[in-house]
Amino acid sequence: MQVSSLPTSPSELRGLIRDNRLVQPTGGFAPGHVQANLAILPKEQAFDFLLFCQRNPRPCPLLEVIENGDVEPRIFAPGADIRTDIAKYRVYEHGNMVAEVSDISEFWRDDLVTFLLGCSFSFENALMKVGIPLRHIENSSNVSMFITNIPTTEAGQFSGPMVVSMRPIHRDKVVRAVQVTSRFPAVHGAPVHIGDPGAIGIKDVTQPDLGDPVEFKEDEVPVFWACGVTPQAVAMNSKPPLMITHSPGYMFITDEMDEDLAVL
Amino acid sequence: MQVSSLPTSPSELRGLIRDNRLVQPTGGFAPGHVQANLAILPKEQAFDFLLFCQRNPRPCPLLEVIENGDVEPRIFAPGADIRTDIAKYRVYEHGNMVAEVSDISEFWRDDLVTFLLGCSFSFENALMKVGIPLRHIENSSNVSMFITNIPTTEAGQFSGPMVVSMRPIHRDKVVRAVQVTSRFPAVHGAPVHIGDPGAIGIKDVTQPDLGDPVEFKEDEVPVFWACGVTPQAVAMNSKPPLMITHSPGYMFITDEMDEDLAVL
Repeated sequence: MQVSSLPTSPSELRGLIRDNRLVQPTGGFAPGHVQANLAILPKEQAFDFLLFCQRNPRPCPLLEVIENGDVEPRIFAPGADIRTDIAKYRVYEHGNMVAEVSDISEFWRDDLVTFLLGCSFSFENALMKVGIPLRHIENSSNVSMFITNIPTTEAGQFSGPMVVSMRPIHRDKVVRAVQVTSRFPAVHGAPVHIGDPGAIGIKDVTQPDLGDPVEFKEDEVPVFWACGVTPQAVAMNSKPPLMITHSPGYMFITDEMDEDLAVL
Repeated sequence: MQVSSLPTSPSELRGLIRDNRLVQPTGGFAPGHVQANLAILPKEQAFDFLLFCQRNPRPCPLLEVIENGDVEPRIFAPGADIRTDIAKYRVYEHGNMVAEVSDISEFWRDDLVTFLLGCSFSFENALMKVGIPLRHIENSSNVSMFITNIPTTEAGQFSGPMVVSMRPIHRDKVVRAVQVTSRFPAVHGAPVHIGDPGAIGIKDVTQPDLGDPVEFKEDEVPVFWACGVTPQAVAMNSKPPLMITHSPGYMFITDEMDEDLAVL
């Protein structure tokens, strides 16, 4: 479906997704509304994962936690069902993907805790609104992501390096990019690094570890933000017995507005 | 001891406190450094309490969680020992205070999880720095606190109304007070309410539920901030088998600077 012909209400979009009538990446859906990364873990791992997010708010900006026994994101999307309202899920057992499905009801257990985490769509919208172009969006490609040498603060079984996303920004716009994204700590917030990729352990900024390469134009500087892939990568490292995530690009669409997450 | 004759280094102050050579309220100690509220709970209650803090960041601004089995606040005060480095602790069993002690080693168990929460000293310093006087500090009295009709978002066994602190602010300074405290979401942040006490369920603003009454001068407006008493009150409501807190006013002094907590 063309994005322009879709309903703009998050609950209507979730209804189409629930009925398997809308199976495509959610970038551009419900403009102005927060979209979220998903991580579902057994209660046994949930305290350590919650603590990991608390200790690493830039890569792991926690929007909402749904307690075990419940499936409704009461704060960000009352009435939704986290088992059906994402178009594609990935199911992992002991770190191995065992299924990619449009409904996780058959995998559901009463001890599962759901974590919804902020995603970069919110701050990317904020950047574009102030006239800072984002090449990977212009190119309809995935953002470049890198595994850095920046350690996260460990929590129980969870530890590992920070993953960052990188966007080339014209040197005249770098300060503005810092200011604009600083308003959104709930969705990764300010950059973690500006400039020299080597300083954070990146050998070649044109060869991303994940996502697609991106061209640099004259006077553009690489600007790095903490990336929501970090908590999933860290959780997967610990090979939990069961973990469920969204499939990349197929986010959970919430009722909340991006602007409601701004600190100032 | 006169505050002016004390060392200004947090670790030296904690050393004096550990040796029971400094037993007095910590307001004004180690200027510019973050002081913290303490809540210690068994692991059994820790996930729900952590989640309660995540859902209610204004009354429960979590600075650091020390996992069970550990006693060192590695992030905010490396080298410190949470069992000895506060001058006065209160020990509660099933909601009843059973001891007030200078050392909790005898109560320590390997399943205890420690929560350090932001306290109002940090944002009060920020207000005074921009020339907004605080009457309860001028009077050396305790701030006025009220139990409101603002609900918190419950988590498991933890629920209850928000407790707020109230400071009379001249009407010309109210906007500045909002701006200045908005920079510090990690220590309660912006006010939750300005003006009419009745709107948040307070019958008489001169009769606080906790702390001391405070005089209003001409053209002063009551301004209300979420208060760190909230998480303790909420936890106590649920009558956990064991809970340990600091005694009011005897805070944990961290190495971190207030300014490092500012978002902008």
